[in-house]
Amino acid sequence: MASELPSYKHFNVTFPREYVAHVETNRPEKMNSFFEAMWLELRTIFDTLSELPSVRAIVFSGAGDRAFTAGLDVKAASQGLLAPSEGDSTSDSARKAAKLRRTIADFQDCVTSLERCEKPVIVAMHGFSFGLAIDLGTAADVRVCARDTKFSVKEVDIGLAADVGTLSRLPKVVGNQGWVKEVTLTARIFGAEEALKVGFVNSVYETKKQAVEKAIELAGLIASKSPVAVQGTKENLNFSRDHSVKDGLRYTGVWNSAALQTNDITAAILSGLEKRVPTFEKL
Amino acid sequence: MASELPSYKHFNVTFPREYVAHVETNRPEKMNSFFEAMWLELRTIFDTLSELPSVRAIVFSGAGDRAFTAGLDVKAASQGLLAPSEGDSTSDSARKAAKLRRTIADFQDCVTSLERCEKPVIVAMHGFSFGLAIDLGTAADVRVCARDTKFSVKEVDIGLAADVGTLSRLPKVVGNQGWVKEVTLTARIFGAEEALKVGFVNSVYETKKQAVEKAIELAGLIASKSPVAVQGTKENLNFSRDHSVKDGLRYTGVWNSAALQTNDITAAILSGLEKRVPTFEKL
Amino acid sequence: MASELPSYKHFNVTFPREYVAHVETNRPEKMNSFFEAMWLELRTIFDTLSELPSVRAIVFSGAGDRAFTAGLDVKAASQGLLAPSEGDSTSDSARKAAKLRRTIADFQDCVTSLERCEKPVIVAMHGFSFGLAIDLGTAADVRVCARDTKFSVKEVDIGLAADVGTLSRLPKVVGNQGWVKEVTLTARIFGAEEALKVGFVNSVYETKKQAVEKAIELAGLIASKSPVAVQGTKENLNFSRDHSVKDGLRYTGVWNSAALQTNDITAAILSGLEKRVPTFEKL
Amino acid sequence: MASELPSYKHFNVTFPREYVAHVETNRPEKMNSFFEAMWLELRTIFDTLSELPSVRAIVFSGAGDRAFTAGLDVKAASQGLLAPSEGDSTSDSARKAAKLRRTIADFQDCVTSLERCEKPVIVAMHGFSFGLAIDLGTAADVRVCARDTKFSVKEVDIGLAADVGTLSRLPKVVGNQGWVKEVTLTARIFGAEEALKVGFVNSVYETKKQAVEKAIELAGLIASKSPVAVQGTKENLNFSRDHSVKDGLRYTGVWNSAALQTNDITAAILSGLEKRVPTFEKL
Amino acid sequence: MASELPSYKHFNVTFPREYVAHVETNRPEKMNSFFEAMWLELRTIFDTLSELPSVRAIVFSGAGDRAFTAGLDVKAASQGLLAPSEGDSTSDSARKAAKLRRTIADFQDCVTSLERCEKPVIVAMHGFSFGLAIDLGTAADVRVCARDTKFSVKEVDIGLAADVGTLSRLPKVVGNQGWVKEVTLTARIFGAEEALKVGFVNSVYETKKQAVEKAIELAGLIASKSPVAVQGTKENLNFSRDHSVKDGLRYTGVWNSAALQTNDITAAILSGLEKRVPTFEKL
Amino acid sequence: MASELPSYKHFNVTFPREYVAHVETNRPEKMNSFFEAMWLELRTIFDTLSELPSVRAIVFSGAGDRAFTAGLDVKAASQGLLAPSEGDSTSDSARKAAKLRRTIADFQDCVTSLERCEKPVIVAMHGFSFGLAIDLGTAADVRVCARDTKFSVKEVDIGLAADVGTLSRLPKVVGNQGWVKEVTLTARIFGAEEALKVGFVNSVYETKKQAVEKAIELAGLIASKSPVAVQGTKENLNFSRDHSVKDGLRYTGVWNSAALQTNDITAAILSGLEKRVPTFEKL
Repeated sequence: MASELPSYKHFNVTFPREYVAHVETNRPEKMNSFFEAMWLELRTIFDTLSELPSVRAIVFSGAGDRAFTAGLDVKAASQGLLAPSEGDSTSDSARKAAKLRRTIADFQDCVTSLERCEKPVIVAMHGFSFGLAIDLGTAADVRVCARDTKFSVKEVDIGLAADVGTLSRLPKVVGNQGWVKEVTLTARIFGAEEALKVGFVNSVYETKKQAVEKAIELAGLIASKSPVAVQGTKENLNFSRDHSVKDGLRYTGVWNSAALQTNDITAAILSGLEKRVPTFEKL
Repeated sequence: MASELPSYKHFNVTFPREYVAHVETNRPEKMNSFFEAMWLELRTIFDTLSELPSVRAIVFSGAGDRAFTAGLDVKAASQGLLAPSEGDSTSDSARKAAKLRRTIADFQDCVTSLERCEKPVIVAMHGFSFGLAIDLGTAADVRVCARDTKFSVKEVDIGLAADVGTLSRLPKVVGNQGWVKEVTLTARIFGAEEALKVGFVNSVYETKKQAVEKAIELAGLIASKSPVAVQGTKENLNFSRDHSVKDGLRYTGVWNSAALQTNDITAAILSGLEKRVPTFEKL
Repeated sequence: MASELPSYKHFNVTFPREYVAHVETNRPEKMNSFFEAMWLELRTIFDTLSELPSVRAIVFSGAGDRAFTAGLDVKAASQGLLAPSEGDSTSDSARKAAKLRRTIADFQDCVTSLERCEKPVIVAMHGFSFGLAIDLGTAADVRVCARDTKFSVKEVDIGLAADVGTLSRLPKVVGNQGWVKEVTLTARIFGAEEALKVGFVNSVYETKKQAVEKAIELAGLIASKSPVAVQGTKENLNFSRDHSVKDGLRYTGVWNSAALQTNDITAAILSGLEKRVPTFEKL
Repeated sequence: MASELPSYKHFNVTFPREYVAHVETNRPEKMNSFFEAMWLELRTIFDTLSELPSVRAIVFSGAGDRAFTAGLDVKAASQGLLAPSEGDSTSDSARKAAKLRRTIADFQDCVTSLERCEKPVIVAMHGFSFGLAIDLGTAADVRVCARDTKFSVKEVDIGLAADVGTLSRLPKVVGNQGWVKEVTLTARIFGAEEALKVGFVNSVYETKKQAVEKAIELAGLIASKSPVAVQGTKENLNFSRDHSVKDGLRYTGVWNSAALQTNDITAAILSGLEKRVPTFEKL
Repeated sequence: MASELPSYKHFNVTFPREYVAHVETNRPEKMNSFFEAMWLELRTIFDTLSELPSVRAIVFSGAGDRAFTAGLDVKAASQGLLAPSEGDSTSDSARKAAKLRRTIADFQDCVTSLERCEKPVIVAMHGFSFGLAIDLGTAADVRVCARDTKFSVKEVDIGLAADVGTLSRLPKVVGNQGWVKEVTLTARIFGAEEALKVGFVNSVYETKKQAVEKAIELAGLIASKSPVAVQGTKENLNFSRDHSVKDGLRYTGVWNSAALQTNDITAAILSGLEKRVPTFEKL
Repeated sequence: MASELPSYKHFNVTFPREYVAHVETNRPEKMNSFFEAMWLELRTIFDTLSELPSVRAIVFSGAGDRAFTAGLDVKAASQGLLAPSEGDSTSDSARKAAKLRRTIADFQDCVTSLERCEKPVIVAMHGFSFGLAIDLGTAADVRVCARDTKFSVKEVDIGLAADVGTLSRLPKVVGNQGWVKEVTLTARIFGAEEALKVGFVNSVYETKKQAVEKAIELAGLIASKSPVAVQGTKENLNFSRDHSVKDGLRYTGVWNSAALQTNDITAAILSGLEKRVPTFEKL
């Protein structure tokens, strides 16, 4: 399957089992901190996997022992994103604002590529998981982590409100809005157990290795189901998050008016009765 | 009170205490699995109880020891809902889709009858509680269960995205969206303790018998309050779920502009001061 | 700083540390129960602190040992809000309703002053925290409490649906909607541990004194961060609660197009590198 | 086709041409004014036609020369809908309100049956078209009228805000909100020319007879098109009215993912090339 | 009635007929251009009239022959609103932005006082009606004008996007979005006839005097109707503008559950039958 | 300026006057009908112009005398978009649906590039303007046309509901929803005068040549204004279309908190006082 894809510069993309892709941020020497070329490439990867028929579920993690990602590469950012005047031809605040809006929107779109990816995305986190780590994590479907993970919504510590996803998504991911306010307003570090208790992660594993393995296992389980059912489930959950129950029901009804015509239903029911593993056409 | 109602074919409707109705799915020999005539009758029952003045709170459970409901009667469905071509005069996908939309919309409306019922609905679950069990459970106001309950959002296992409520309502019921994604994408079975921890159920009881008794007790407590206050509380919580806080406040203000004119307030305050049980006019 | 403010009749406003205000309801002899002049004054206070540059975070608590607030002063209310006919020139239900709508809207606006306050508000609760206590608490950003706190969404017990905030905000604060339905429909008392478990409070402390001290400490921590970052974080979280993720991202992008032009970012990053405490201009 | 339907008490339902149904309110001696049994029957008719495969477009008009409908039968209403206390067992304002809410919701649902009808509905109006005439007219897809039509949003003249559709739909039908405010706040009568100018009607015809004939002709034209395309167009326009453009596009994309699989497209394109009339399977 | 009100500095408030108030901007020597103290006072006036029982409809116009209003007093604004740095203690763009947000929000709220006023507001425009004239006009319910009126959405000509109402309200007032784009993007002047054609004004009169007289006549007509019906109509139209039809119907149903209990209905119906003028209790 | 851009295959892009770009569909021999490579290139062009500082307004028209565009190239489409089974590896309706959703979404995004373009887009139409012509036209800001234009929402005539914009945008562009229903349900051709009357076009010119010249003139006028003001106006009008007035005001306030810090305001006001043409920095 790897042969279907080009090789990427900042990420390793492998296929640890049938229908499962594994995307790994590959900048361990800098604690997987991100600069612009990286988030642009990340979007390319997820937009590609989204439509790749040989992939049904995706695991996302970071290389090395120290960090899922320490967040933005602040040094790079302070010469770019966070320093709009630098190398800028204008001193007009409104024109700087226009430039910033474009930059933020494009950056947001890269992070959103995990959410709009048609296949479920499971993030396996470990070590330092600061700032952008939370933006990326909340754009995924499921989060697991290693026991050593140190999380922080770090943005207020560098003087800004988190603007590439955390403030919009974290309150819809976690059912404790006082906690969300506290960790976003203080940037305090929290650990794996606290993340588990508030529902930010689904499971905590002893080591990074285990976290990634278990994430791949979970991805494998999802990949064994009908892709029509799985992709419909992800899309309809995402739609429902942002709409009333009435609108959610209406959208799901229209969605399933096509999806229920699939052969996967018969395949799934029959294999269930016959207690064998069903095979589903690619999607 | 029973005399106010006709007798039903697939459900037992009883009145275990004043102002409390108990609806029991009565198909234990098939683990209370549902076919179309059943969900149609269920709607009739809840639409009737919604306006019946002698009822102020409702408990919903399943007959027999084995299951609240094992979900759709797959055999029946595979000759109907899940087999749009069977007995169908058309092979046109768009026309099949139109037929499916109508069927799904009507089925959804039956499940929604629990939500739009003006009186609070408490579901007491036990044993197998698969598929439709979750759709029905999330359309109710409060869920309790027996320790032996085995829950599953089973739909992906039969090749479809849950379309009669779970995908729209479960994420708004439970404050852990990663968990919602996991259980809907894997169809894995989870037990009473896990359901309690994530907030899917309010309480776990040792046996089904206890779960139903405690649900009736809770219903009795609610039924002892002002029905003006109780029904207003249910309606305004449901409205607020789907609207901004600003809209929720505006709607509640208009609602209470009539409701605060009730005599129940004086009755409640006086009986509170005099430490006696208030009596409220029917509603 | 106190000199910048007038003195208030029903509240003590002090400044326990730099940039932190402490608002204390001062009617302990009546368990801090509220009548109309109090909620009007509360709005004045929070609207003032919202724009006071010397304040960056606010703690809100109640005087005395017995109660954060026992809720509405029912005696006062039964001669006013809850008795629309008293002293009323009309017996026309529609005209009474118009009068009630105005009264409720104004009362709601007073409670909302905590939410629209540009600076984060931390509520420290203790003892009786009934009715209005929950409305006020959910309008704040973070809630902590003493171990002895007795919470109740008391409104159904006096014959009404809670209409100054709880029904609109509590379901968005806490990730367990069955629990929300249960406590609002039964008015049952719940304690600190339960409040912690469902996420209604962030922390429980042994005594009221500790709860207030820890709240001030938390406020102090928040006040040490860039006020541009902190106020942007509060506003964008509040916006996102009521909008889709897409709209949240769009709003945050526009917000930060001005906010990222602040000098606080450089100040924060530099002081981070130099491991010293940054100083930020007032806001 | 008539044989597929029962006969109705208050309406004539005929089939003036292939795939076109004509529903006529039949109470000319009372200027087609409505009482409760009539709007209930109207809902039955439209819900039936909505799914009747032999119908593709519907014309709705009123019998007799004098009125499309003079609106509510005020005499009947003043003993029912508009007199909640009459024959009522309660004097409690909140309980009267609950009863009124149910009645209004049911009445609204009857009017909404024109909107949710899957087939387009063309209303041909003439003579007195007061009150309910506007509620019904705005729930339809297209309105035409005779030159003699006298329109009035009559409700304020009997002391009430129009609550079965006009206030919600008229501002979305007509692009002149100042005019909407004026005619709803004054109840002044306006004629066919004014209705045409503001876009309330599509066309004005000399006589009632012509208006009905032309409406049938228009219905016939619509009925000659692919029913997959026509019904999809109505549904997606109705969805888009109430949602953002982004949501409208998303919904239409999902809708057409099934609809574009129809054989009607090939049939339509081929017959277009061959300049003959296409035939489409029923829907 | 005038005696119920204080006298105002920048506006004349008179009562030309029973239940009708007339608010006139009184700065003719400066073409009624606005500075901050004026819009603050305008809000005070409309908030007062909103609850004044002796007022049922309001006319708003400008003193003198030359202008309804020429818009912002640019000279005053360029020392205040449009010059955030002037007299400002900060050079930080983010802090300037915070200050601007507060100022704009407060200014918007003053303009919105026409919209939230419970009584209908009719604006009679003449002469120069530039910039703020359109913001104020679109916040009213009905607009009429004199033949000599020269309208312009003037803001782009002074380098800004109109931010106190026009961009949010004009597209919802007028049914021609291409025209809205054109006049807001070019700031070109348009006259009374064009305003009439696109639906921005309801009527054009020969002179300012006539426009004001006819506006008072229209206000008088509205004031002769049941105030319960009139105020309910305004509120429900405003709610429906910003919500789906389904939500509009739901809100109207709840609203009327109180409003239909009014005695005005009987009064209106009886006086209709007896062909006499009804009398309604104040509201 | 042309030198800043690559040359395009299916479109001519020229710069007829300072700050104005002219995009012309260049397939006159096929009546400018579109196939996939064309709409992909169109998106590239508009996404580029959106950020090109030398462009402030854009005119869009079609080459040749016969057609703005006759719509989809049906022949090409019937081998692609409209023939999902052709060359398809699957016969599964759900998988075909998935493929169709992706295709439609991408096509919609290309059309939406006119709307999201930060600079205003004026479409000048002539001759046949069918199907896609309306989708493109409604995604633009202003529409003008030649007297000979023949418009048609042609989609129902080829068996489908218009899904790349018309059904979502036309009802928000034009203030006559009955007319929208009629022309979308019948596909009947309408001319320039009718388009003008309902507000679909702003102006009608005698010839195509004049229409394009006048569009360029209008673009030139817009391009002479402050680009900060112009781009803010477009964005805020588009935001307001899809949101409540309250949200529109809030968004505009945040937007202008940066935009009002521009030097353009001083430049515009001064040049206005001095009656000279202002110069604005690029954006």
